[in-house]
Amino acid sequence: MLTLRTPYLVFLGDEADSAYAKTGIGLAYWRPDLCVGQMRLSDNAADTGLPDQSIHEAQAAGAQSLVLGVAMIGGAIPAEWLPILVEALEAGMDVVAGFHTKLSSFPELVAAAERGGSNLVDVRVPPADIPVGTGQKRTGRRLLTVGTDCALGKKYTALALAKGMSAAGMSADFRATGQTGILIAGGGVPLDAVVADFLVGAAEKVSPDNAPDHWDVIEGQGALFHPGYGPVSMGLLIGSQPDAFVVCTEAGRDTIRGWDSFSTPDIRDVIARTIDIGQQFNPDIRCVGISANTRHLDPTARADYLGALEKEYGLPAIDPIATGVEPIVTRLATEFGQ
Amino acid sequence: MLTLRTPYLVFLGDEADSAYAKTGIGLAYWRPDLCVGQMRLSDNAADTGLPDQSIHEAQAAGAQSLVLGVAMIGGAIPAEWLPILVEALEAGMDVVAGFHTKLSSFPELVAAAERGGSNLVDVRVPPADIPVGTGQKRTGRRLLTVGTDCALGKKYTALALAKGMSAAGMSADFRATGQTGILIAGGGVPLDAVVADFLVGAAEKVSPDNAPDHWDVIEGQGALFHPGYGPVSMGLLIGSQPDAFVVCTEAGRDTIRGWDSFSTPDIRDVIARTIDIGQQFNPDIRCVGISANTRHLDPTARADYLGALEKEYGLPAIDPIATGVEPIVTRLATEFGQ
Repeated sequence: MLTLRTPYLVFLGDEADSAYAKTGIGLAYWRPDLCVGQMRLSDNAADTGLPDQSIHEAQAAGAQSLVLGVAMIGGAIPAEWLPILVEALEAGMDVVAGFHTKLSSFPELVAAAERGGSNLVDVRVPPADIPVGTGQKRTGRRLLTVGTDCALGKKYTALALAKGMSAAGMSADFRATGQTGILIAGGGVPLDAVVADFLVGAAEKVSPDNAPDHWDVIEGQGALFHPGYGPVSMGLLIGSQPDAFVVCTEAGRDTIRGWDSFSTPDIRDVIARTIDIGQQFNPDIRCVGISANTRHLDPTARADYLGALEKEYGLPAIDPIATGVEPIVTRLATEFGQ
Repeated sequence: MLTLRTPYLVFLGDEADSAYAKTGIGLAYWRPDLCVGQMRLSDNAADTGLPDQSIHEAQAAGAQSLVLGVAMIGGAIPAEWLPILVEALEAGMDVVAGFHTKLSSFPELVAAAERGGSNLVDVRVPPADIPVGTGQKRTGRRLLTVGTDCALGKKYTALALAKGMSAAGMSADFRATGQTGILIAGGGVPLDAVVADFLVGAAEKVSPDNAPDHWDVIEGQGALFHPGYGPVSMGLLIGSQPDAFVVCTEAGRDTIRGWDSFSTPDIRDVIARTIDIGQQFNPDIRCVGISANTRHLDPTARADYLGALEKEYGLPAIDPIATGVEPIVTRLATEFGQ
């Protein structure tokens, strides 16, 4: 697995649009314990609520890495960022990013990292030497979020579940399989960038052996019925060996986003295929809930929609933002014990 | 797709063990039309039956590439090969290999290729710029070989079917998804080396649009129930959009080779899952036969075994080496027309 040096200083540049600063905002929201502060180059920049700090102040507060929490447009690092990143690297802090353009393609940064004995960390790049999958069962419990499509809340659901399970006194960790998740978790494997033969092996590394009552809550990727990304989901399902899974969906999304000639699958078919593939590696696999993105529904329609799902599937159906994940946490505690 | 410059001069070095020369022997067996000759450095070397030629003679006969048809042990090119490869490259011939060690890691070869305007081609390396899969149906017909496990005859079955279909007057091409297959086909994509997100897109490139009655006979990879390689098989199945598939198996193989705690799946389950996943992308997908490796059975036991499979599944069951593929070719012609 990739492992990041924490805690972080979250860098936001002068990005005023919170949509482009969502990585930094998400970090501060989900893992305030991993963030010592934020650095903003303008008073108009997005504000995570963390204390504003210089490199020097962040380092005094213990920061080990500067995380680029904003999108980089067009593949170039803005000129005003460079001296700051160089200062952090020379001071011995790692610089961490999830850009398409690799940090190591900027010679100034490579030279500064050499001087500081620090690292340029691209969380889109899988670690070297990932093994082939073994299929051997690991200790501890695992929950995987799966989806009827991509980009409808699998990461958010996993984060909310891990937080809710911990709050309920269960031993639980979020496990990351994508770049933003890796920053939040402080480590993980960017599954979509792994070479095909090593996909299952990479998924196995994400949730290693653990205590018998410990839950790894694993961020799903892709969707089993997705025309482009189905194999990534299959590799993650095989390697995760989940005891439990939650199906994530979006109310009203009838076609696969970007593949509009394909209908989204029935939740029933997603459950059936997930069990069909997963039971070879964990005979006890079961669905424990449905997590629906209902942002386009008003409260009455939301209650009707979730109620209908609960009735049809005999499972808790929630919106992690609008209603919270507690019913699924309760179901887990009831079925598996604390 | 990778596309190789043909025809070939097949290089065998001084390899006397035909097991280590199987790539060269396979090339001469399956595609004599693509091979102008062989080059051997010793009279004891394996003999493909092709005429022995020097670089000069091969080039005069039209050779565009020298293919290394022997295994390279330990990652080093034997010293006595180097002047020959350099001569071929300087003469403008490509040098093609499927080694783990890349040809471009040998500076002498890189320099010679520059001088000759020729190429070093590693068939284990996927082409750049593979797109994400689209799921869009392509024209023409497709047959995919799938397996109960790896390494039991999916490539051989596809080659034998393409040859048998052509002999029966059908329009058919073998399509390659692995390194040896790529040499035989003169092109293809090494599917197991593709990054996960692009697996389906790579599989789609292997069998592009074709005439309505043309068959692409696609070399299978991995196995859907394989603990390590299942996702590769799923990506190939989605991207191939097969009209027909043949299940390859081996009589007496009860566990997944190298993953001995896993049983090989029932052929019935392989058929069911292949149809379950494949029908989203081709509603007409059907199984047209079973290809069994029966090398460990005597003729009576073989006949009993294949007869029992035919009775159980209502499908032609053959051994491509011992009995030939004709019953499956006949079934295809009957079901789909010539």
